Amino acid sequence: MRDIAVFSGTAHPDLAEEICAHLDVPLHPVRVSRFANDCLEVQLEANCRERDVFLIQPLVPPVQEHLVELLLMLDAARGASAGRITVVMPHYAYARSDKKDAPRISIGARLVADLLKTAGADRVLAVTLHSPQVHGFFGMPVDHLHALRELAAHFRQYDLTEAVVVSPDLGNAKEASHFARMIGTPVAAGAKQRFPDDRVKISAVIGDVVDRDVIVLDDEIAKGSTMIELMDHLRELKVRSIRLACTHGLFSSGALHRLSDQEGVLEIVCTNTVPIPTEKRVPKLRVLSVAPALAEAMRRIHNGESVSALFG
Amino acid sequence: MRDIAVFSGTAHPDLAEEICAHLDVPLHPVRVSRFANDCLEVQLEANCRERDVFLIQPLVPPVQEHLVELLLMLDAARGASAGRITVVMPHYAYARSDKKDAPRISIGARLVADLLKTAGADRVLAVTLHSPQVHGFFGMPVDHLHALRELAAHFRQYDLTEAVVVSPDLGNAKEASHFARMIGTPVAAGAKQRFPDDRVKISAVIGDVVDRDVIVLDDEIAKGSTMIELMDHLRELKVRSIRLACTHGLFSSGALHRLSDQEGVLEIVCTNTVPIPTEKRVPKLRVLSVAPALAEAMRRIHNGESVSALFG
Amino acid sequence: MRDIAVFSGTAHPDLAEEICAHLDVPLHPVRVSRFANDCLEVQLEANCRERDVFLIQPLVPPVQEHLVELLLMLDAARGASAGRITVVMPHYAYARSDKKDAPRISIGARLVADLLKTAGADRVLAVTLHSPQVHGFFGMPVDHLHALRELAAHFRQYDLTEAVVVSPDLGNAKEASHFARMIGTPVAAGAKQRFPDDRVKISAVIGDVVDRDVIVLDDEIAKGSTMIELMDHLRELKVRSIRLACTHGLFSSGALHRLSDQEGVLEIVCTNTVPIPTEKRVPKLRVLSVAPALAEAMRRIHNGESVSALFG
Amino acid sequence: MRDIAVFSGTAHPDLAEEICAHLDVPLHPVRVSRFANDCLEVQLEANCRERDVFLIQPLVPPVQEHLVELLLMLDAARGASAGRITVVMPHYAYARSDKKDAPRISIGARLVADLLKTAGADRVLAVTLHSPQVHGFFGMPVDHLHALRELAAHFRQYDLTEAVVVSPDLGNAKEASHFARMIGTPVAAGAKQRFPDDRVKISAVIGDVVDRDVIVLDDEIAKGSTMIELMDHLRELKVRSIRLACTHGLFSSGALHRLSDQEGVLEIVCTNTVPIPTEKRVPKLRVLSVAPALAEAMRRIHNGESVSALFG
Amino acid sequence: MRDIAVFSGTAHPDLAEEICAHLDVPLHPVRVSRFANDCLEVQLEANCRERDVFLIQPLVPPVQEHLVELLLMLDAARGASAGRITVVMPHYAYARSDKKDAPRISIGARLVADLLKTAGADRVLAVTLHSPQVHGFFGMPVDHLHALRELAAHFRQYDLTEAVVVSPDLGNAKEASHFARMIGTPVAAGAKQRFPDDRVKISAVIGDVVDRDVIVLDDEIAKGSTMIELMDHLRELKVRSIRLACTHGLFSSGALHRLSDQEGVLEIVCTNTVPIPTEKRVPKLRVLSVAPALAEAMRRIHNGESVSALFG
Amino acid sequence: MRDIAVFSGTAHPDLAEEICAHLDVPLHPVRVSRFANDCLEVQLEANCRERDVFLIQPLVPPVQEHLVELLLMLDAARGASAGRITVVMPHYAYARSDKKDAPRISIGARLVADLLKTAGADRVLAVTLHSPQVHGFFGMPVDHLHALRELAAHFRQYDLTEAVVVSPDLGNAKEASHFARMIGTPVAAGAKQRFPDDRVKISAVIGDVVDRDVIVLDDEIAKGSTMIELMDHLRELKVRSIRLACTHGLFSSGALHRLSDQEGVLEIVCTNTVPIPTEKRVPKLRVLSVAPALAEAMRRIHNGESVSALFG
Repeated sequence: MRDIAVFSGTAHPDLAEEICAHLDVPLHPVRVSRFANDCLEVQLEANCRERDVFLIQPLVPPVQEHLVELLLMLDAARGASAGRITVVMPHYAYARSDKKDAPRISIGARLVADLLKTAGADRVLAVTLHSPQVHGFFGMPVDHLHALRELAAHFRQYDLTEAVVVSPDLGNAKEASHFARMIGTPVAAGAKQRFPDDRVKISAVIGDVVDRDVIVLDDEIAKGSTMIELMDHLRELKVRSIRLACTHGLFSSGALHRLSDQEGVLEIVCTNTVPIPTEKRVPKLRVLSVAPALAEAMRRIHNGESVSALFG
Repeated sequence: MRDIAVFSGTAHPDLAEEICAHLDVPLHPVRVSRFANDCLEVQLEANCRERDVFLIQPLVPPVQEHLVELLLMLDAARGASAGRITVVMPHYAYARSDKKDAPRISIGARLVADLLKTAGADRVLAVTLHSPQVHGFFGMPVDHLHALRELAAHFRQYDLTEAVVVSPDLGNAKEASHFARMIGTPVAAGAKQRFPDDRVKISAVIGDVVDRDVIVLDDEIAKGSTMIELMDHLRELKVRSIRLACTHGLFSSGALHRLSDQEGVLEIVCTNTVPIPTEKRVPKLRVLSVAPALAEAMRRIHNGESVSALFG
Repeated sequence: MRDIAVFSGTAHPDLAEEICAHLDVPLHPVRVSRFANDCLEVQLEANCRERDVFLIQPLVPPVQEHLVELLLMLDAARGASAGRITVVMPHYAYARSDKKDAPRISIGARLVADLLKTAGADRVLAVTLHSPQVHGFFGMPVDHLHALRELAAHFRQYDLTEAVVVSPDLGNAKEASHFARMIGTPVAAGAKQRFPDDRVKISAVIGDVVDRDVIVLDDEIAKGSTMIELMDHLRELKVRSIRLACTHGLFSSGALHRLSDQEGVLEIVCTNTVPIPTEKRVPKLRVLSVAPALAEAMRRIHNGESVSALFG
Repeated sequence: MRDIAVFSGTAHPDLAEEICAHLDVPLHPVRVSRFANDCLEVQLEANCRERDVFLIQPLVPPVQEHLVELLLMLDAARGASAGRITVVMPHYAYARSDKKDAPRISIGARLVADLLKTAGADRVLAVTLHSPQVHGFFGMPVDHLHALRELAAHFRQYDLTEAVVVSPDLGNAKEASHFARMIGTPVAAGAKQRFPDDRVKISAVIGDVVDRDVIVLDDEIAKGSTMIELMDHLRELKVRSIRLACTHGLFSSGALHRLSDQEGVLEIVCTNTVPIPTEKRVPKLRVLSVAPALAEAMRRIHNGESVSALFG
Repeated sequence: MRDIAVFSGTAHPDLAEEICAHLDVPLHPVRVSRFANDCLEVQLEANCRERDVFLIQPLVPPVQEHLVELLLMLDAARGASAGRITVVMPHYAYARSDKKDAPRISIGARLVADLLKTAGADRVLAVTLHSPQVHGFFGMPVDHLHALRELAAHFRQYDLTEAVVVSPDLGNAKEASHFARMIGTPVAAGAKQRFPDDRVKISAVIGDVVDRDVIVLDDEIAKGSTMIELMDHLRELKVRSIRLACTHGLFSSGALHRLSDQEGVLEIVCTNTVPIPTEKRVPKLRVLSVAPALAEAMRRIHNGESVSALFG
Repeated sequence: MRDIAVFSGTAHPDLAEEICAHLDVPLHPVRVSRFANDCLEVQLEANCRERDVFLIQPLVPPVQEHLVELLLMLDAARGASAGRITVVMPHYAYARSDKKDAPRISIGARLVADLLKTAGADRVLAVTLHSPQVHGFFGMPVDHLHALRELAAHFRQYDLTEAVVVSPDLGNAKEASHFARMIGTPVAAGAKQRFPDDRVKISAVIGDVVDRDVIVLDDEIAKGSTMIELMDHLRELKVRSIRLACTHGLFSSGALHRLSDQEGVLEIVCTNTVPIPTEKRVPKLRVLSVAPALAEAMRRIHNGESVSALFG
């Protein structure tokens, strides 16, 4: 089979290094130059010809810089006769722009999917897309992983006899229930009430949480406002402890400190799909690595083995 | 401006006739032949050259026949030098196939969108797509109407002082709350609990419904099982009356009779996006027409006026 | 080389089984679900990743169902990262819609070829297309087999010293003459006269058929009217016996019984490109299998060996 | 409506001039330069911006020069912001390469159709394509004219009471019978017998021609061999007179003189879809003009009127 | 004709305002939102339906932000059914990435051209592209203006009897000579010598400059190093005065102050294709407006009049 | 790996033979037929299925014939299921049409690149394109070789102590300086002065050439006028000897004799990218072969090895 060739943009080199260590292949260097007029130029510094090329780049802030850099990397790989190009995109920020809920707005999730194709992407490896429909925006094969196995392994170290998994939102409780099954606990969910003026508030928690060890699970935490609102309800319901878990730890605007300061929060768990600078981290934060899972998926993609068989 | 030319496939000629009556334009005939080998051939029987062509065809059962017929109509219109071709698709059945929740399955909503484009569609006019993300599956402009104005006009004839709008599902309650605002009532919703074995059951109704006149609102009713489950809860909660409302009245497998027979159901209201044969109808059924709204949208599309301004 | 993976739609599973037996590979299961709203969903139930995927589906009645099912299978295979996808289409019903002989009609043969490409087909394996130009409608490589070797092997079991091959139509006599060469007989043909009012009638048989054992050869038999008209002429010319042969035995509307009842018909021979239900069969029918030829072509396509070398 | 702008390549400027005279619009000049390295450069010497541009260029010898010149004209018109570009191609030489009757050969008719699209053509206006399937090779609207009205008007000047239209080939007799209807005569046809060694010879003439005034009609005459073979049969059958008629008068390799010298030939009639240099012409040749028909079709295309209504 | 609708991104709203004032049309507002995860969303706040939409956005720093914003504006306009979309891009920074002079690098000028097309651009209006070949990178019509008329009008106010136009580079002297013709002066040029080690230095000035009033003309000034090197030569040659002129005043890294401080520099003239913040400006700077020229080009594009006729 | 299969068009069979000898693979025959109507048909006479196909065809006069022949070869190879198709195009004549320097002209270099893609090309191997930007016109990977190593090897046989490389043009002196470095000599260049009336004349030679052995280097020589003008200057500067060198020896209109007759010319050196018929050759001509370099590049392309590593 064609050799594998892995490159990383500037968005998350640590994750790329870790993936390559698991794959036991070198992470090839990429030269990204910025010209006097602020344009970028990318040079892939290893032979791509007929190689099975993987470009690792989560779309994390500064998103526009990382997106254009990724598009230029794709163009360079294609021009260099790559045999196949897989974009490894552990976080796809534009997935949230997935519908047209106002007139004359852009649908960024579809547009960016099309741009990646234009630039030369043959396939995408993504983690926990914001909505499952975003999969269909890509005109190319997508392998869509979830980080539940990593989170489950982490929580199994605790005594879970009194634990319950809580989804902040009934609408998206499918993943929470799947997770609860994995760690052998019941599941509950916040019920969001929508008022006639379209305000949304958590009005109740469906399922039994009283005196239990709660694990709140969501796909991502950005500002953390929903989490804080949910915890108010949980404390009223006299839960015994609270742990927060998510896949994408965006933690914008001081969210980590705000959540960490909440009464009763024992732990905040996320994965490393999004880089978290050391200075933003708090003692209660625990970052799990998706590098082994991404490496295994890349190995299977490269070898033509079933990815769904493993992560289904 | 180029003249308008409206054609209808065989899926719902009554709706097409009604739309054309509102537009005050002729509905041009289409000849659909079926050959000995079961292939279809379509002939548009009016000049399309440089015309602003509208092809009316909801994807209703038999879906595959109507889909291929529509694709052939598109091919014929394009080959006949149509100036622009708009597919008027009041019901898009394949919208439900919008995600890949099992390995190696088709994503029909995206595929059919691509097929329409290949066959020559320039734009689509749709009503209440199953999920808002489906909009982004189309690589062409989509005008996406809702039938809430028609439903609101209908219910405003009743005394609504004790009425409440109930969504069967918290996840999709946005439309229900929008509708409640339109008719000046509160809103409530069924809370679906997902069990660790992934079974889903309505476990509660969030919001005040006791002794109220309930209007249950959903986007479509097919078999009606969710409705029946919800009504069990509503009756336990001692509601005063129940009316069921939806946009797409698919009513498969005797659903109309089953729902009509439910204790306390005063009325079943839907629109005519899906044809309902006379023999399936029940006395409690009330079918509202979307023809005026579709005609007005088509008029605006033809004249280049804002569609969102009207139906936003 | 990549492994082969063969799937069959619901159009002709027997043929698919037989092909796989010849190839000595498993026929992988396909789950085709029909939802309450009549939409289809397809799941390929074996790993396709980087495999050399073959999808077997002749376009036979109900044609529209089988066509959409095939398009969904293509979408599923592509989304599942198939390495290459070959559509094995032993009968292509839409090939007859190959020209625009009236204003504003669809050209189904070109449209369906484009739809297959949009859905993900990389290549097509077909048998005896209605006109050779249809090959050029496909924007992808086509391997175009003929079933003459199977038919020749069958007829060589008889005493052919007094035999003659007769084509019902001079315009398409090329295949008949090729076939006659294969079995060492002379060739003759019905001459269709076109009257000024565009009626077409067989007016003569060109070539010597008197007192001979006639083998009538055509590409397909649907209603069989041309055959019956030709046999009237043959009987007038005092032929000794009549055998009918074709590749595609569509036999619509009781054609088999009607042909079988004709005076002097000893045998009706076709291949299994089109499934013939047991209840339609008559004692004089003889169905030859193209499975060995299709299997050998698939083996050569898979191994990159010349297909024309064998079947040219 | 946008203005019309007509340009001609170097293939047949006389026809272009004549068309423009009928349309009463100027024929805009085109500068075609040939560089020292034999490359062509085309400059359209009139404003194309938002114009309805028509490029007149039959593909006649030297075909490759005229084809590339046409592709460059298309590129220039597109780059100059033409509103719509119609290729007026009175003769499409590559239409004969419409099937793959040997392994690994090009299908020129499909390839050139695709090249025209790549270069910017929006639609094509053609005259009497060699086979009707070629229409489907174009991924754009085609208006396909026939020159039968011109030929009929010419022959109506004669006494047709004893006339008969003869097609050299039964396979393509449809046009001949259509023509016979137009001028009120019977129709006959040469029956080509195909021998087991694949040689093809005219073996008979189906229909009554004895002592009649024969009008032989074919789509094109190149070397004229078929015509000569047919005339041998006709003379044996004691026809009274022979006139030859075709749409495309290619007349290669001295064909005109050879045909003109045949005993009993009164007249050779063709149209001006292909230019015939004065030095090749013979006294018996009569060239009819398709310029009025092409001009009328262009006028209707420009105005969005039905073309089929006129020439159907 | 369809109405015009002009929008501006955030790159250069002043220029857009000025253009709209000249066109006497409103500049419609655009809402650009930045989400917590740094993604952008664009909403065009005026009806685009069937309008002739112009999106004004030079690619100036921060280039990546402005590029993605432009792509989202295109997506929004297309989704809002714009009749035609013209990108008005007074400065195209990526034009400098026009060749592959090292292995495995991106060719940004071609990639960005393709991205604009994917996002929905129908045509581009650009000013003084870095190399004329970049025109050919766009798969759509490009109107390519030069700002020489504006510069000429400015310099004609001076006494030019002793003036000479100097190009810093012989390779690109074509524009300088064209400019010299416009203002009636001779032309000269710096001769860059390339040393065997590939260093490039100005080694001479070809043409007579002694005791003359020099106008140095280049397409853009970024860091200004070439200008400074040229001025050393000019001073040695005892020129009387120096004025610097360019189209694109990028003036990165304090270039304006550095150039302004050079001995003998009377004036630095550029146009407003690139915004120059007030705080960067120096007293010797003179910024000419291309707004009238762009407005006139837009008016002609909208009306289908020749653009080359005016600015050729 | 897939086998290699090399075919040559009629443009330069000698070069193809030589390349295949170096690769030690057979040159497979191609049948090119010309029909009575001047159309071409191509048949590749060896199995292409899944092969790594190389089609060798420089675009040399008659350019249009060779271009269409190449497009038909591509179509045939694609239709014959080639695994990958590389166009080996040692001379790309249309590269000179790379900009739009007059209104409404074609940009042939971009158009032909697009045509090659439409016809089925997957990649291109070219030698010394006229401008480096032409690389970006191709929407597929391009390997771009230079023939400087061949030229350097040739000139190293001479005593180069007093040699100097001279570029006729300062604008394109980069290659000359690269070449000078390879053979260890200084570099000089003709300075073209552009007059206000846009005439261009060599006005000076920058760099020291007096009493030196001059090697003039250009990318191609067509009519040779620039060379003759440059030599006038060189003789005035009392150079010791003159040798002319280029990659593409087009030598149109008696250029070889004209150059050979110039006083002081010792040698004219070119490569065999363009065929030079024996009868055009002069005694002073020396033709170097690029066949070894092209063969090595093809070997590396076939094996997935870096091409830039060798020829960078």
